[in-house]
Amino acid sequence: MLTFDDILQARERLRGVAHRTPVLTSRQFNEQAGCEVFFKAENLQRAGAFKFRGAYNKIASLTHDERGNGVLAYSSGNHAQAVALSAKLFNIPAIIVMPSDAPEVKVIATRGYGAEVIFYDRYAESREEVGTRICRERGMTLVPPFDDYKIMAGQGTAALELLEDVPELDVLLVCCSGCGLLAGCATAAKHLRPGIRIFGVEPEAGNDTWQSFHKGERVEIPVPRTIADGLQQSSPGKLTFPIVQKLVEDILLVSDDELIETMRFILERMKVLVEPSGAAAAAAIRHRKADFAGKRVGVTLSGGNVDLAKLADYLKANV
Amino acid sequence: MLTFDDILQARERLRGVAHRTPVLTSRQFNEQAGCEVFFKAENLQRAGAFKFRGAYNKIASLTHDERGNGVLAYSSGNHAQAVALSAKLFNIPAIIVMPSDAPEVKVIATRGYGAEVIFYDRYAESREEVGTRICRERGMTLVPPFDDYKIMAGQGTAALELLEDVPELDVLLVCCSGCGLLAGCATAAKHLRPGIRIFGVEPEAGNDTWQSFHKGERVEIPVPRTIADGLQQSSPGKLTFPIVQKLVEDILLVSDDELIETMRFILERMKVLVEPSGAAAAAAIRHRKADFAGKRVGVTLSGGNVDLAKLADYLKANV
Repeated sequence: MLTFDDILQARERLRGVAHRTPVLTSRQFNEQAGCEVFFKAENLQRAGAFKFRGAYNKIASLTHDERGNGVLAYSSGNHAQAVALSAKLFNIPAIIVMPSDAPEVKVIATRGYGAEVIFYDRYAESREEVGTRICRERGMTLVPPFDDYKIMAGQGTAALELLEDVPELDVLLVCCSGCGLLAGCATAAKHLRPGIRIFGVEPEAGNDTWQSFHKGERVEIPVPRTIADGLQQSSPGKLTFPIVQKLVEDILLVSDDELIETMRFILERMKVLVEPSGAAAAAAIRHRKADFAGKRVGVTLSGGNVDLAKLADYLKANV
Repeated sequence: MLTFDDILQARERLRGVAHRTPVLTSRQFNEQAGCEVFFKAENLQRAGAFKFRGAYNKIASLTHDERGNGVLAYSSGNHAQAVALSAKLFNIPAIIVMPSDAPEVKVIATRGYGAEVIFYDRYAESREEVGTRICRERGMTLVPPFDDYKIMAGQGTAALELLEDVPELDVLLVCCSGCGLLAGCATAAKHLRPGIRIFGVEPEAGNDTWQSFHKGERVEIPVPRTIADGLQQSSPGKLTFPIVQKLVEDILLVSDDELIETMRFILERMKVLVEPSGAAAAAAIRHRKADFAGKRVGVTLSGGNVDLAKLADYLKANV
């Protein structure tokens, strides 16, 4: 089981390595939303997303020999860059298995960190199988994207920092895909502030966690087609889901249009770039998916890796 | 004359009102530029630009009666929003005289702060005359955009903060238009670190300060046509220019294409939005307008107010 102690240990491993990202606020966002929102700007994290926290914590926790053989990750992008950067910092080899339609900026950035990229077809192959096979062939350690306590513990340090900076939060909203960030942040937040209400947020088209949560067991859906390319997960994790069931109040759903509208607002008024996936939790507040009136609400801006060509399309989209 | 004491007083007036903006860094920017750059992120300042510092300092320095009659500003945008927001904070009326082709985001934001907007044609009328006439008619106090010691003192607090955070800067680059930011920052920086080398940066098309600097007297040029809408000034100020002559080493020029390339890099890799004008100083480093090899260089990212429709064009431009 994931414990608060795991998260404290992750924080020690990340000290001086991960950025302590700023907490942003916007008077105008608050006025429109009718509540007071504190944005944990993980888009300003190293490699552009919260994923660095988990990946580095996992690799730092390996034995010296394990680490020396190198690491492999399968990822839609942000986890890839996080593992590639972490491997570079430890000076060890890394292979990243990526979907062939991953945003170009993520492929370039991943290679820029010195990792080898191997592509697969996300609509035809299982990334788990591709990754596991290569690991076996090359003797590398798999760094899973979410279903691992070391990964969750790393991600949880984001909520730990947020609650240190803003202790009196009433609500915490976290983007969810495989639920590593959600499980980690929920564990940290509920320990520090037992009365806090926690929500996961995912895209309508990829509502696997919502379905699973309301059915009471993990549901698998086809790979969803949504602009939130970081949230295209088929089901919550085996290890993350029980934590979500225990600590989370509900899962909220946002549309692709709501994601675009929200990322535009954050760019235009708050001057920071979030990717569509990273805007999910903020979108749930802006579009009032639950009653947050008058509350102090924490929100993850989980990543900021966007192809500028795609960004231009989002800016011109008729939303 | 502007003194360091004026800047310290401005800092006291701004305390708890202006944001102490973060200093950003980018490993990749440094690698490509061959020097170590510290970005003072005034795009994250209130109202989206450094201008708030000067405007608020000026209005805070008025007598109670002067202030009560309200304030007027003529501005291409960022100064407008800064004066409008400052007036709102003091709960006094504000009129903003704006060019008719000002970015829509700036007009909307200015009105959003409760100011009245009056338009003029920047290619046919003098904003100074329009502004002075309305001031006389309505008994308001003019808040000039740059040629005023209270304005310069406010802007200088940006460099004061930067040098407190990064004391060992070798070089400071500041975007310049009317030279209020440059004069204020140069005064602060030279007091704190006499050996620092200071450069102003302006667009090639609007090289009035460069011409003036090299001729040794203020030169007036036609209103320049550049995407840097915040730097479309015809000449440096009467009061700012002597300070620039005394403290600045040289003026550097950047092209519109270099501004676009730089704002794109900062958006894609550093995840923050700067407007073309605000990217000028960073562009001068990226495009090596002087030899900064191995130096510790401070840079103002002076503002982040961009129409998203225009931003989409910049992202798609063939630069």
